[in-house]
Formats: sequence, C-alpha cells, structure tokens
Amino acid sequence: MQDRGVFIALEGAEGVGKSTQLRRLVTAIEEAGHRVDVTREPGGTATAEDIREILLKHGNEPMPPSAEALLMFAARALHTDNRIRPALEAGQWVVSDRFVDASRAYQGGGRGIPLSQINQLADLALNGLEPDVVILLDAPVEIGMERADRRGEKDRFEVEKTAFFERVRNTYLELAAASPDRFYVVDASGDIETVGAAVDSVAQEVLKRFK
Amino acid sequence: MQDRGVFIALEGAEGVGKSTQLRRLVTAIEEAGHRVDVTREPGGTATAEDIREILLKHGNEPMPPSAEALLMFAARALHTDNRIRPALEAGQWVVSDRFVDASRAYQGGGRGIPLSQINQLADLALNGLEPDVVILLDAPVEIGMERADRRGEKDRFEVEKTAFFERVRNTYLELAAASPDRFYVVDASGDIETVGAAVDSVAQEVLKRFK
Repeated sequence: MQDRGVFIALEGAEGVGKSTQLRRLVTAIEEAGHRVDVTREPGGTATAEDIREILLKHGNEPMPPSAEALLMFAARALHTDNRIRPALEAGQWVVSDRFVDASRAYQGGGRGIPLSQINQLADLALNGLEPDVVILLDAPVEIGMERADRRGEKDRFEVEKTAFFERVRNTYLELAAASPDRFYVVDASGDIETVGAAVDSVAQEVLKRFK
Repeated sequence: MQDRGVFIALEGAEGVGKSTQLRRLVTAIEEAGHRVDVTREPGGTATAEDIREILLKHGNEPMPPSAEALLMFAARALHTDNRIRPALEAGQWVVSDRFVDASRAYQGGGRGIPLSQINQLADLALNGLEPDVVILLDAPVEIGMERADRRGEKDRFEVEKTAFFERVRNTYLELAAASPDRFYVVDASGDIETVGAAVDSVAQEVLKRFK
C-alpha cells in the first residue's frame, strides 16, 4: 500500500515572502522524489475559490468576524475533504499556502474570536486533520507591511492596520511556541536568498524526518 | 424611544406552503399597523445571497455537511448583524422565511450534525438572537414532497429523499415540543384556505401577545 503523504502548511502574515519561498520549498521536496500537490487557502477547490472571492473582496456590506471565520472554515472543509485528504491518501505530499493556523492567527488573534471557538470550528470542519509540519515565515510587522505596500491593490485583509498585524504575528509565535514539534519558525526579515537558504535547511530536516 | 420590533421565523420542510402563508402572515401584521421587513434564509443581504447561490447550486464538487452548516451560519451572521438586528432596533417587525431552527432541522436532523455543534455555531454567529416566535408549518412528508415535485427544477436540498425529509420534520417537531412558548405548530396538510385560516389565528394570537 502507498504510504500516506506529508502535509505541510506555510504560514505567515502579509509581505513575509510566502509565494517565493513556497516555490523553493516545493522544488526541494520534488527533488527528493515526491509528488507534491501545491495549494492555497482560502481556496483550493472550485467551491472554496468561490468562497475566497466573497472573503477577499471589498463590498459595501460589513463582514462580522464570525461570518469571516465561518466562511474560512467552510472553504477549509471543502479543501480538506475534496482535495487534501485524497491527495495525502494517494501518497502525494501537500504544501498549502496557509491552513488552520491562519484562522487561529487572523480570525483569532487579529479579529478577537476566542481560540476555543476557532478550535470548535476546526473540530467540525477538519475531523482532526492538522498539518504534519507548519513552516512559519516570521518578520517584524513593519517589514512585512512595507513589502506588501509595494505590491499594489490590497484585499480586505491587506488594508488592516499595524495593530492587527501585530496581533496576527504574536498569535503565530504563540502557536509555534506551544507546538515546537510541528512548527519550524524561519526568520523572514532578511533578503530572499538568506530566507531561501533557511527554508532549504528546514526542507532538508523535514525530508529526513518523514523519510 | 422606539419599542423593539418582534422577530418571527416561518419554518417548515419543502412543499408546506411557506411562501403563500408568509404573505398572509405579513398582511395580518401590517393590517395591525406594524411595519414589516420580510426576508429569507439563506440570504437576506447582498453577501448572504452570494452565499445562498453557493449553497443551493448543484456543482460537481461534493458539499460536506460541515461546509453546508458553516456556510448557512456565515450567511446567518451577515443577515443577523446587517439586517435583522437593525430592523428590530428601528421598531420594525421582521418575518423571515427560515432562520436558525432550519439549521437545527436540516443540517442537524437531516445531515446528522450533532445539535451541540449546531448550537456552538449559533453562539458564534448570532450573539444570542433567537426568533421571538417560530411558526412551523407541518405536513406529512409525502404531501410536502408531492407539492414540491410540481414546482419544477429543484435545488440541492429539494432533491433529497424521503428519509432525509422525515428526519427534518421530526427534528422540527422535537424543537417545537421543547420550546412550546416560542413555537406555534400549524397543520399544513389541508388546502391553502384551511391552512391560511390557521395562520391568521396564530397571527392574531401573536399580535395580542406582543401588543
């Protein structure tokens, strides 16, 4: 029987360089001979991408934090059942640009929903699935926001203020401290090559661990 | 200060005649001199109607029961915060074609999500708002399904089988039995006029109670 694949989530606030480092991580895993399904949240399936649109657009209608969290987990339930679990069971590795810890950081830390309620949503939506590995790209908020500013048009999250992203970052760091076996924290404040070298070394560690 | 309005939900499975009886109910309340905001679920605001589309369409992608429940409550949080509460606070009565008990009956009874989890979602989404009055149109499942069959194209719920609607009906009846102060059960198995007369008499009772 095919071994189950390994599920890796790449996490971090705006402007930490997730897209660039995600490609580097995937290349390292593929070079070790694994098939990788590369996906993202919110989204990853047709219906979850429809939900993503609702989540990111700026409408005239205010979005209550509860509605935001419920939509995130609706998309995540679809993503988990219809894409991530089948891929893992088929022996593929899965690398997702964000997963459940993003809700703990953004809807929990950022929007102020108690972690106990976020975890109730996770119980309902995920049937116990958590990433095997979370790679957290961490940088001081000013650095991330400055990089994000250079990218042009911003979605409903990217327009948030410094205090919001400070709460997001602190929550990510608390989650990492609470689960040191699962989290790898990468200093993302340096240039692309320095951060990339750190990501490569985490990738090699993970490949050795799940060999 | 303006008195708070009264919040009435009209509930029932497919084919019980909700749309027809809703108009009759609203007319009775308006004739008593109240302004009425008439709305429906899932939906009732622009963003909630976007979520309704995702919920009702038949895609190629399976919809896990958890995702269905999460989407229902996301739409309901928007509906509650952005329409129902403001209307009630402005002194309007609100009549909604379905509200939270529909999730207890459909996603709970119908899809099998434990009531404790449905109530957790309600805690997160509604901040304690429940309808002041629930009018449940109840009819044997065969009668409702036969009427619904005559209406043509069916959404993702209407295509369900008898056993599903039996569970929905039984859950509605259990909810009514558990909250006799809040629920009015109307026998909806008769013809439109007979059911209408029963709805009128409930409307008069409610108007007297909330005078």
